[in-house]
Amino acid sequence: MTVLHPCIRDGWFYEKNDMWPGQAMGIEVKQVLHHEKSKYQDVLVFESTHYGNVLVLDNVIQLSERDEFSYQEMITHLAMNSHPDPKKVLVIGGGDGGVLREVVKHESVQEVHIVEIDEAVPRISRKYLPKMAVGFDHPKVKLFIMDGFEFVKDKINAYDVVITDSSDPDASSSSLQTIGPAESLFENEFFQLLNTALTPNGVFSTQAECMWLYIDDIRKALDFNRTLYPQVGYAYSCVPSYPCGQIGHIVCSKNVNVDLTKPLRRWTPEEEAKLFKYYSADMHQASFVMPQFAKKTLFM
Amino acid sequence: MTVLHPCIRDGWFYEKNDMWPGQAMGIEVKQVLHHEKSKYQDVLVFESTHYGNVLVLDNVIQLSERDEFSYQEMITHLAMNSHPDPKKVLVIGGGDGGVLREVVKHESVQEVHIVEIDEAVPRISRKYLPKMAVGFDHPKVKLFIMDGFEFVKDKINAYDVVITDSSDPDASSSSLQTIGPAESLFENEFFQLLNTALTPNGVFSTQAECMWLYIDDIRKALDFNRTLYPQVGYAYSCVPSYPCGQIGHIVCSKNVNVDLTKPLRRWTPEEEAKLFKYYSADMHQASFVMPQFAKKTLFM
Repeated sequence: MTVLHPCIRDGWFYEKNDMWPGQAMGIEVKQVLHHEKSKYQDVLVFESTHYGNVLVLDNVIQLSERDEFSYQEMITHLAMNSHPDPKKVLVIGGGDGGVLREVVKHESVQEVHIVEIDEAVPRISRKYLPKMAVGFDHPKVKLFIMDGFEFVKDKINAYDVVITDSSDPDASSSSLQTIGPAESLFENEFFQLLNTALTPNGVFSTQAECMWLYIDDIRKALDFNRTLYPQVGYAYSCVPSYPCGQIGHIVCSKNVNVDLTKPLRRWTPEEEAKLFKYYSADMHQASFVMPQFAKKTLFM
Repeated sequence: MTVLHPCIRDGWFYEKNDMWPGQAMGIEVKQVLHHEKSKYQDVLVFESTHYGNVLVLDNVIQLSERDEFSYQEMITHLAMNSHPDPKKVLVIGGGDGGVLREVVKHESVQEVHIVEIDEAVPRISRKYLPKMAVGFDHPKVKLFIMDGFEFVKDKINAYDVVITDSSDPDASSSSLQTIGPAESLFENEFFQLLNTALTPNGVFSTQAECMWLYIDDIRKALDFNRTLYPQVGYAYSCVPSYPCGQIGHIVCSKNVNVDLTKPLRRWTPEEEAKLFKYYSADMHQASFVMPQFAKKTLFM
């Protein structure tokens, strides 16, 4: 199959992007499995030589089968285990199904809503990323194909946990450098709506960029969420296929007495070993420990 | 300056290497500052557009000025703070001077020996990486240009701390795939010599590859060191310009009562903020927390 894609050259995908100037992850391509322009974005799936299948939206790597577990486990369980008894969960974005797969590991969960704007992502995930899309098949899960903003704007006191697993909507925008790459993700109006959608002791977590690239934007997002929640933390996971090899998570709780760095609920070490490839109660705690440079900018 | 280098194409350096097949970090090149074939290796220094000056040995990125601090601080202070009173310190490799810069932050230190096989590295570091080479100028530091194996083989009970900061000597070898990339680094005979060179409560740390790439080799190295030391640990630092964005450290102590994950000596938070960009007592402890997949392979 010969597909021309602007990021593939001589059999390698290079993630060059104005969001991380001067650096680019390269992944060797075995074959392109799918390429389309959906209603919202450029969607590419390729089989790599060493990272399994790779999903790319608007030229940005979303996940590889080899290392997706660390991001999916951490964005989910950092939030879920900061709530004492999560029953109703909302996932915004996450159309690959990976967060769903993790959410339903919590037996307390009764209902999971997922809102994905682009029908192409679940469709393609079912075909090429079956170990992630398995999340859609769980009887507790309900998928809504619509805009996340629209979905949440009339939700009040509805969810115990909200997880935002979005790509950067502006990645392909020509105005990227003017408005800043993480602008949409970090929009205050959206944070406000999510806060309203949460129950009184509700917990919110979001993909929150890389501390090596966007430390000042992360600080701004933390500061605004500090006006909404009494407890706001920042953690990170290591993901080799992401820029700089890691990505951050903002985690917020409405419960003033919660210490986000310490999981409220834990599995036994034996259960952890069965359920996870990355997450553990110890990793939960360790992931909030920041390098000095980040601690200074984010917390002082 | 127009220098042809096999890893530079269209203004980008790509770190393609059989040691990490199917993936490659790309860094945009502003200009090549230096390129030579030294007696031992291909030595390249380029100025990048966003990572400062970058040192490359045998086509492998050794450091960038933008993120060198995390590796230098961690490999040094994980070891140094696992000793109650380090006076004599040996650094093997580390010809850029970064580890020296960190070692002399410990006031207890009376003498630091550094053994670097290739005179080209300190020479070039002094010229193009002055913020690292500053370590050579400290009055407690003495540089030996010779082979590390040769240097240590007659040393007995001589050093409180030994830090091995080496590149992979086999990176450019044609027999790489046969013998394994980390073979020389993880040679048992070398580990044995270092153990003999240490004082009774001595501490050893070494660059120990990336858990996402060489987990089985790391296990072997840990297992052999477990035959030499009562306390053996594995930690990691995040370094965006390294393969997969992180690198590991084996840390060993002869003192059976030491918990390597907890620093024996600490600075105050104010001192930490002044001295470091990455390391802290909290980070020391967090860096030993492994993802599940690594914990299973390395510790079970």
